[in-house]
Amino acid sequence: MSTPSASPRAGLPTVTMIGGGQLARMTHQSAIALGQCLRVLAGSAGDPAAVVSPDVVLGSHDDLDDLLRAAEGAVALTFDHEGVPLEHLRALEAHGVAVRPPSAALQYAQDKLLMRNRLAELGLPVPAFVDLAGDRAAARSALIEFGAAHDWQIVLKAVRGGYDGRGVWLIDCGQEQALEVFDAAADSSVLMAEQKVPMVRELSAMIARSPHGQGAAWPVVETIQRNGQCAVVLAPAPGLDEETAQRAQQMALRLADELGVVGNMAMELFETVDGALVVNELAMRPHNSGHWTMDGAVTSQFEQHLRAVLDYPLGATAATADVVVMANILGAENVPEMSMDERLHHLMARLPEAKVHLYGKAERPDRKVGHLNIVGRPGQPLADVRERAERAAHWMSHGVWTDGWDPHQGEN
Amino acid sequence: MSTPSASPRAGLPTVTMIGGGQLARMTHQSAIALGQCLRVLAGSAGDPAAVVSPDVVLGSHDDLDDLLRAAEGAVALTFDHEGVPLEHLRALEAHGVAVRPPSAALQYAQDKLLMRNRLAELGLPVPAFVDLAGDRAAARSALIEFGAAHDWQIVLKAVRGGYDGRGVWLIDCGQEQALEVFDAAADSSVLMAEQKVPMVRELSAMIARSPHGQGAAWPVVETIQRNGQCAVVLAPAPGLDEETAQRAQQMALRLADELGVVGNMAMELFETVDGALVVNELAMRPHNSGHWTMDGAVTSQFEQHLRAVLDYPLGATAATADVVVMANILGAENVPEMSMDERLHHLMARLPEAKVHLYGKAERPDRKVGHLNIVGRPGQPLADVRERAERAAHWMSHGVWTDGWDPHQGEN
Repeated sequence: MSTPSASPRAGLPTVTMIGGGQLARMTHQSAIALGQCLRVLAGSAGDPAAVVSPDVVLGSHDDLDDLLRAAEGAVALTFDHEGVPLEHLRALEAHGVAVRPPSAALQYAQDKLLMRNRLAELGLPVPAFVDLAGDRAAARSALIEFGAAHDWQIVLKAVRGGYDGRGVWLIDCGQEQALEVFDAAADSSVLMAEQKVPMVRELSAMIARSPHGQGAAWPVVETIQRNGQCAVVLAPAPGLDEETAQRAQQMALRLADELGVVGNMAMELFETVDGALVVNELAMRPHNSGHWTMDGAVTSQFEQHLRAVLDYPLGATAATADVVVMANILGAENVPEMSMDERLHHLMARLPEAKVHLYGKAERPDRKVGHLNIVGRPGQPLADVRERAERAAHWMSHGVWTDGWDPHQGEN
Repeated sequence: MSTPSASPRAGLPTVTMIGGGQLARMTHQSAIALGQCLRVLAGSAGDPAAVVSPDVVLGSHDDLDDLLRAAEGAVALTFDHEGVPLEHLRALEAHGVAVRPPSAALQYAQDKLLMRNRLAELGLPVPAFVDLAGDRAAARSALIEFGAAHDWQIVLKAVRGGYDGRGVWLIDCGQEQALEVFDAAADSSVLMAEQKVPMVRELSAMIARSPHGQGAAWPVVETIQRNGQCAVVLAPAPGLDEETAQRAQQMALRLADELGVVGNMAMELFETVDGALVVNELAMRPHNSGHWTMDGAVTSQFEQHLRAVLDYPLGATAATADVVVMANILGAENVPEMSMDERLHHLMARLPEAKVHLYGKAERPDRKVGHLNIVGRPGQPLADVRERAERAAHWMSHGVWTDGWDPHQGEN
């Protein structure tokens, strides 16, 4: 594996993506346009990407041999999640695999504490935080001190492995609740605590960076979370002033440069009540907050991620419409009687402009099984585009058209 | 096969496409978004669609058993070419396969003489034509009479199997040439002759129709042919008045309805010097003249074809920009020293807005190996968009940037 070689198919390269989820599935769509076929390392033959690509290596992202098998002959190896152990990433690099983003960058997306420390070092705005690793008694004391200093407006987080609200605990009821959560979670996870930032909304600044150092930023978007996971994305973020948008893009581009990121990076931000930006999370891969680009930007995040990891020049990132709204299709608490196929029929009849992306996943409560984009027509108000997207996604999830639609339901 | 059943994958259906070419390849991209995986019947494991879909049946479109194998469990069977023998289509239907378009419609796309006769019957405008099947001496006499009546401004055509300029002979030099072509070709092909229509340009009216009878028309485009095959598409057709555009769309929608077409139909038209429209060819599948929709229309022709054959409601067909230009990437006479991958790098650096679609095919002279779309920015003149698309396609084909670019080179 010291000399990764190009695929024989018409002289175009093969990229391997670790993980067979929806991000790999949609990356495969873009790989096809570039004359390629995405190879995926999937845990199961039924994974969203494994059912649509013929180049599947079955195995585990925790197993170095599986990773090496998946990398063989590929010109670059990239990821649809952050779960590959750091020591494996380093071993792959030692074997000559072009790991993109490299382990030296990806570790900051894997470890929230490492990320917070590095961002603080670089002078980027982060919430106040405290390390709760190490000795249990000392950590408990540190938590009590930190919580008191921030009026118990804090969040407990697992340093590794959280996503979509998992591994994140909002503290609403003071010290007693905080210690209870800490005691329950500290056995299985290394924890940290952060100040709960008094924010007006969440933003995402998504960029891509190539090994050559080229960077490209999409318009900054607003993300709306429900039950701890992304539900809706408004592109661009409505009412965001140009100066703040550029500041967010430049923070993301600069950080990617400092960390040596290759591929996409989503920088999730809080916009505070006084107009400041605070970095929340980082992801170094295609990201839910970039799904709108599939139908609403010149270059989709999936094509761009491939271009970046292949060190191709990056594509134009302009939006193709004034307003684009993405809404996730989630599995419902009670799977609707009407099948997904029937619901899709009805949606298409009602909204011929809806762009639906289904992941081929079984429906389970709150599981992301697809998303849809509504691209606004010229002059169409955001509220109208958003209402169509939200109603459509609600229909696809629940099989019920909401008549009393409330744009703020379940937000947190 | 009397009860086609849905795929077990998340309750969504499987469509089978006969043919593993680029049209199937791009249909697979759209199938993925709809939660599906396109099954293809491919002649070779290296076919453009076979290298990107995991659901490949290897076999021949001439073999009924292979066709039946490919149809098993699929809710609909459709085509990326017109080559399946009519008797096999009828046999599939007799086995309960949902053949879309049905044989009763598809026969008109397979047989130019049948098509001409049917169109004339329906009162649709067709060039004068003469049947040259049957007795050789009688056909020769008919040809001489027909040619003389049209000042030898005629075209000889194979009734079946021609494409991309194959099976079409333009007569430039009168009776002697016409008889020479006739004598050479009549052994292997059933022939017909048509009047060469004095036209200003070629148009394509592309529509989709569902079994339910819903029809949807994309904007009418101008197609520019070189060496007998489509080279460039301008969407919408520049300067086409609204009345003529609607007439073209309605001719296509009406014909699709009369013939019972299901799926896409491209009606290729001549615009004559006196502003009339004359029907040239019909295709009942995704078509080169619709490739611009992948990046320039709300619903791409590939998604629409799937929606139609599945009897889903059809998607919105509006263009998303004022001007879109598609240019084919053809294999060059001398394959460039620089690889396709390197050429792609350079193109991306020069035109970050180019949307490239490569088919994973080896380069051979005049073979369609990909295409690209340039979507105009608001206010960008057509000439500028077109020049970018043509230069980009020329670069991808030949590995040479044309400085003295001539928009009319090689047109016929």
